[in-house]
Amino acid sequence: MTGRISDETELIQVYFAPLAAPGGFGLKDDCALIDVAPGHDIVVSTDPIIAGVHFFADDAAADIAWKALAVNVSDLIAKGADPIAYTMALAFPEAPLKTWAQDFSDGMRAAQTAFGCALIGGDTDRTPGPLSISITAFGQVPRGGFIQRNAATVGDHVFVTGSIGDAALGLLARREESVVSALLTASERQGLLRRYLRPAPCLEAVPLIRRFASAALDVSDGLVQDATRLARGAGAGLCLRSETLPFSSAARKIIAAAPQHLKTLVAGGDDYEILFSAAPENRLPIRAMAERDGIAVTEIGVLDGSGCVTVLAANGAPLAIHSGGYDHFRGTQ
Amino acid sequence: MTGRISDETELIQVYFAPLAAPGGFGLKDDCALIDVAPGHDIVVSTDPIIAGVHFFADDAAADIAWKALAVNVSDLIAKGADPIAYTMALAFPEAPLKTWAQDFSDGMRAAQTAFGCALIGGDTDRTPGPLSISITAFGQVPRGGFIQRNAATVGDHVFVTGSIGDAALGLLARREESVVSALLTASERQGLLRRYLRPAPCLEAVPLIRRFASAALDVSDGLVQDATRLARGAGAGLCLRSETLPFSSAARKIIAAAPQHLKTLVAGGDDYEILFSAAPENRLPIRAMAERDGIAVTEIGVLDGSGCVTVLAANGAPLAIHSGGYDHFRGTQ
Repeated sequence: MTGRISDETELIQVYFAPLAAPGGFGLKDDCALIDVAPGHDIVVSTDPIIAGVHFFADDAAADIAWKALAVNVSDLIAKGADPIAYTMALAFPEAPLKTWAQDFSDGMRAAQTAFGCALIGGDTDRTPGPLSISITAFGQVPRGGFIQRNAATVGDHVFVTGSIGDAALGLLARREESVVSALLTASERQGLLRRYLRPAPCLEAVPLIRRFASAALDVSDGLVQDATRLARGAGAGLCLRSETLPFSSAARKIIAAAPQHLKTLVAGGDDYEILFSAAPENRLPIRAMAERDGIAVTEIGVLDGSGCVTVLAANGAPLAIHSGGYDHFRGTQ
Repeated sequence: MTGRISDETELIQVYFAPLAAPGGFGLKDDCALIDVAPGHDIVVSTDPIIAGVHFFADDAAADIAWKALAVNVSDLIAKGADPIAYTMALAFPEAPLKTWAQDFSDGMRAAQTAFGCALIGGDTDRTPGPLSISITAFGQVPRGGFIQRNAATVGDHVFVTGSIGDAALGLLARREESVVSALLTASERQGLLRRYLRPAPCLEAVPLIRRFASAALDVSDGLVQDATRLARGAGAGLCLRSETLPFSSAARKIIAAAPQHLKTLVAGGDDYEILFSAAPENRLPIRAMAERDGIAVTEIGVLDGSGCVTVLAANGAPLAIHSGGYDHFRGTQ
């Protein structure tokens, strides 16, 4: 297994057809069928990743594959949907090495197994640009159960799964920035790097979100940006106190020594955690269900009438973040 | 309305949200809902187009938009599916001009109106590469009615809608190649150019395909390549006689004066016509229904036991086309 892939058919039939669900017809058709359980709606997410924008061209092929699917599954989970299938369109700057294709396929298999879905179709092209992977993922929710981003109300409490900011620190580690190597152990750095390279959206939270969330979205463009979206959808504001945010011990070490990196944690992207709101009477039931299901869920604030999202540092000073998060057009963070 | 788009939100809310169907939640959510009629299956096509590969970066924005949707709708039609919705992920090398965004949006509106579907979601990114538009389109077929590519049998007759090769000649016209300008009138050139820039998949053929086709696919990579796919799916071969193929009068002029361009017609891409097979007893009913519905359908051959697709020129000589059509990896035609 050496050399480059010689044609599209080889790439598709050797490396991708083994990943296909029945509705994918062995990837031998131009279209796919989605198999919907009766009484369910289909939820769709489309979120491409591009080398040099969302990942490094020399990241491991298996990690690139995993991330391409994970970022879409994360969107589905936030809607209360169970992932069922995905299509994948690949654009290659040059024909890939067979070893690369095998590693990529292995990474896709690991991801689709972890997330409970399978490939049903796609497309491959050559491009004069960088490698890009455009996945459209499909999930199902019981009819009428789609959790919107914009359906929260003032007074709802706000929760987030997992920890925030580790992937942004993982990106610093990937760039070999000194703050990470100076302050953390090799094992901590590895952990952060993994958060950046292999985001693990919290599939286990689907039943909880379905049952309790008044609104939800995934944290992909930074907590502040995505909290702003949640709050705006409710015509509300939100005050986040840094000491109540779910930071990992590695993240806490970083901000203890370099407080300016609080901004990295709350405005950096790629968390792929779920941010959701719920009515105040659901606080205890949420805590109980999270405990029962072994899910980390942290309450981080209450939607208020302020109309804006603020972050307070441990000393109570508000953090200066104008727009917050990443905008692909402005490129600001 | 001058200058460039300043951020993603402006692009999405000003230019794309007006195109959204109810399941798109005004493009204010990360996911969309597909509204499926009871008793139907969802059919999915994903076919991105990339500047410099599938279109010219300086093509009119409205034409680029139209083509991006048309190439996907064409796939759906071949499956017997009615288009219902689509998602669109855009990657821009630089923030687009507002005038470009408006023209693009106008082109999308014209296309989605023509094809009977609407936008439900998407994504925008900046890319270090060329402009790319990744549409995933959704259609519905009555449950169990999906027409596969691989379900034909030897003895089935083969049909194609519309005319073949005009888009390939339109590409020559777009490149201002002399053969086109020397042999054709300005109005003929315009017609061919339009076929290349604004493919018009034959939505009217959906009922006919649903009722009679044993197998079908759209002709996107050249008639020979796509006929080979249809024949291979049946373990069959097919002999195409050039004099029975549906060539436009402009195309006939070209091959009369420059016979080597027969190859351009049958191996060039971008026809976006539907190629389908049907049992022999359906020949007359197909002709009757096509006439009733005002659809151009031409019978072009019979699936035989030869195992390969050949094209015979008017003099009976077989055309030398090794693989036929376009392979994005080999780049051969």
